[in-house]
Amino acid sequence: MPDLPAPHDARWMALALSLGARGLGRVWPNPAVGCVLVRGARVVGRGWTAPGGRPHAEVVALRQAGALAHGACAYVSLEPCNHTGQTGPCAQALIDAGVARVVVACTDPDPRVAGGGIDRMRAAGIEVVTGVRAAEAERAHAGFFSRVRSGRPMVTLKMATSLDGRIATASGESQWITGPEARRRVHSMRARHDAVMIGAGTARADDPALTVRGFGEVPQPVRVVVSRRLGVPVASGLGRTAQQVPVWLIHGPDAPETARVAWRDAGARLIEGTLEDGGQLDVAAALQALGAAGLTRVFCEGGGALAASLLAADLVDDLAVFSGGLVIGAEGTPSVGAMGVAGLTEAPRFALERVEGIGPDALGLWTRRRD
Amino acid sequence: MPDLPAPHDARWMALALSLGARGLGRVWPNPAVGCVLVRGARVVGRGWTAPGGRPHAEVVALRQAGALAHGACAYVSLEPCNHTGQTGPCAQALIDAGVARVVVACTDPDPRVAGGGIDRMRAAGIEVVTGVRAAEAERAHAGFFSRVRSGRPMVTLKMATSLDGRIATASGESQWITGPEARRRVHSMRARHDAVMIGAGTARADDPALTVRGFGEVPQPVRVVVSRRLGVPVASGLGRTAQQVPVWLIHGPDAPETARVAWRDAGARLIEGTLEDGGQLDVAAALQALGAAGLTRVFCEGGGALAASLLAADLVDDLAVFSGGLVIGAEGTPSVGAMGVAGLTEAPRFALERVEGIGPDALGLWTRRRD
Repeated sequence: MPDLPAPHDARWMALALSLGARGLGRVWPNPAVGCVLVRGARVVGRGWTAPGGRPHAEVVALRQAGALAHGACAYVSLEPCNHTGQTGPCAQALIDAGVARVVVACTDPDPRVAGGGIDRMRAAGIEVVTGVRAAEAERAHAGFFSRVRSGRPMVTLKMATSLDGRIATASGESQWITGPEARRRVHSMRARHDAVMIGAGTARADDPALTVRGFGEVPQPVRVVVSRRLGVPVASGLGRTAQQVPVWLIHGPDAPETARVAWRDAGARLIEGTLEDGGQLDVAAALQALGAAGLTRVFCEGGGALAASLLAADLVDDLAVFSGGLVIGAEGTPSVGAMGVAGLTEAPRFALERVEGIGPDALGLWTRRRD
Repeated sequence: MPDLPAPHDARWMALALSLGARGLGRVWPNPAVGCVLVRGARVVGRGWTAPGGRPHAEVVALRQAGALAHGACAYVSLEPCNHTGQTGPCAQALIDAGVARVVVACTDPDPRVAGGGIDRMRAAGIEVVTGVRAAEAERAHAGFFSRVRSGRPMVTLKMATSLDGRIATASGESQWITGPEARRRVHSMRARHDAVMIGAGTARADDPALTVRGFGEVPQPVRVVVSRRLGVPVASGLGRTAQQVPVWLIHGPDAPETARVAWRDAGARLIEGTLEDGGQLDVAAALQALGAAGLTRVFCEGGGALAASLLAADLVDDLAVFSGGLVIGAEGTPSVGAMGVAGLTEAPRFALERVEGIGPDALGLWTRRRD
């Protein structure tokens, strides 16, 4: 009986997860899902969520498998959807194709799914296994889950600092603290996020492009600037290229009308935020607005004031700290601004995921601790 | 002819180097040398410089080998000495034992040796091979070589910082930024240095013991405090234990006589330094004084002002940066004080040797760049 699927093998889920990761940064507001269809020891279909979010991974894999999908085992990195959007539900597609068993990494917290996809398949007589490599899947879908659960995208904060935590000299010199290998890694990180976000000070000081470069033709992340008074010149690199690569500006209610008009004319999208008691832009509300606009993964590249606001509000999920092999001293610009932390117990804490050498620099990857 | 040594094998030198490393921190002002005597594929003698610096590694290994040393191949991590000090020269001991070949990692820059040991052995008909694992040996003997070549000990600067380069909160809270695993590693690093050095501010703020703890009965490094005006209370932990574990105070010419007397009475050794134009203690001169006193390896544990002085004077050879997974913000105490670095080209630069995870923390090991 060669068509009966073997007991499930978590290694196929690892493949599904790695396929799914190809969609990161390209599929928002959808999750980046991967799917593998296996018969015996043979892969008959592979799919991942296509750029823009459609078609879904399962549909791609089923098309590839054709008639071979019948009796196959499907490994999906997220519960197949159960709602009819632009296309029919994936759960139904798997049923219709005659798949014998579906192995799911984790359920979809989207209230339109939330176990419904699994129920539908079980009701159709398919054996469904759940929770295979669930922790990895939870990480892989962190941005999508964050938006579904709390309305905001997940935030990765990147810092590129000297060994004493400085991002520029007193005179503002910051190019380059890290080497080309680290900068290339930053570009690949940008590519796996829906948007790159900076504060107005960094936009003015560095006039950055914030695009993904060096990886050929790739979808570009949205470029988000947090600027209460829209004090970033429209003649900046961001302003001049806003027609080609999206620029979104989060500003305060008190931003001048002239600046609003100029940026809108340049092609930027304006998002009016709210102010905190202190007069600062409310970053939690800003992230809610970005979530409402569909973003699931935001890559923040500073500067120190925006980093401090996000950290103080406990809005940083992942931290990527690049350390260049130099020391600048206390006159230099700190990587994180004032946070109002009085005691160590108040300091936001992160768990070490990995350290590695990147050319001449070190990279530490940290993720928020909840204990 | 089983007694003729095989062509030399660099792996035996790796063993000699690892044996030699056992003496680090325990043999100053002598080098920490390792020696392996091999006949065929059999180790007949192993030795390393004994605590206090005598006997030398070669003598220990020869004693162990006895008559088996005759015809053996000796691997020594540093050129055998040629001068008659408290004992006869090791080069002569190897000749007298009838060793057939001596493999040396690198020559001894000590002007009393400087190739003379090799010459003496060659003149006696021994085949001598040099330069085997020379780069590793250069690192292993960095402290000894620094003192011989430039009169000062090598300096390892340790920092234990938050992810944004802070060593304490605004209120001075610093315990603990890193976890017990990192602190244990710090103790093992202390044990491999001749002295642990801190500034007066750290001595006052933390009242540290600066001893090696958690490794059983081990020789303790000298505890050095740099304090221009001797403004560290004699009633501190250092003062109370100065009879048990050496305390050396480097002070300025303007240190009050009462403090000098009090510290001397407590058992401390006082070293009068010189002042720079700005009135600061001259750290380069201070290190020369420590070198003159015999120290070869100094482990500096801050604070930020002393770290900045050492870095600005280009006196830091190795950097060990422990990063705890928390963010303190710009109100916190910086790990490195003001250095007067105007542009990035002026910043002292370090090459990455290794990164690793230490429990919940990250550790980057860096060494000074000379390019």
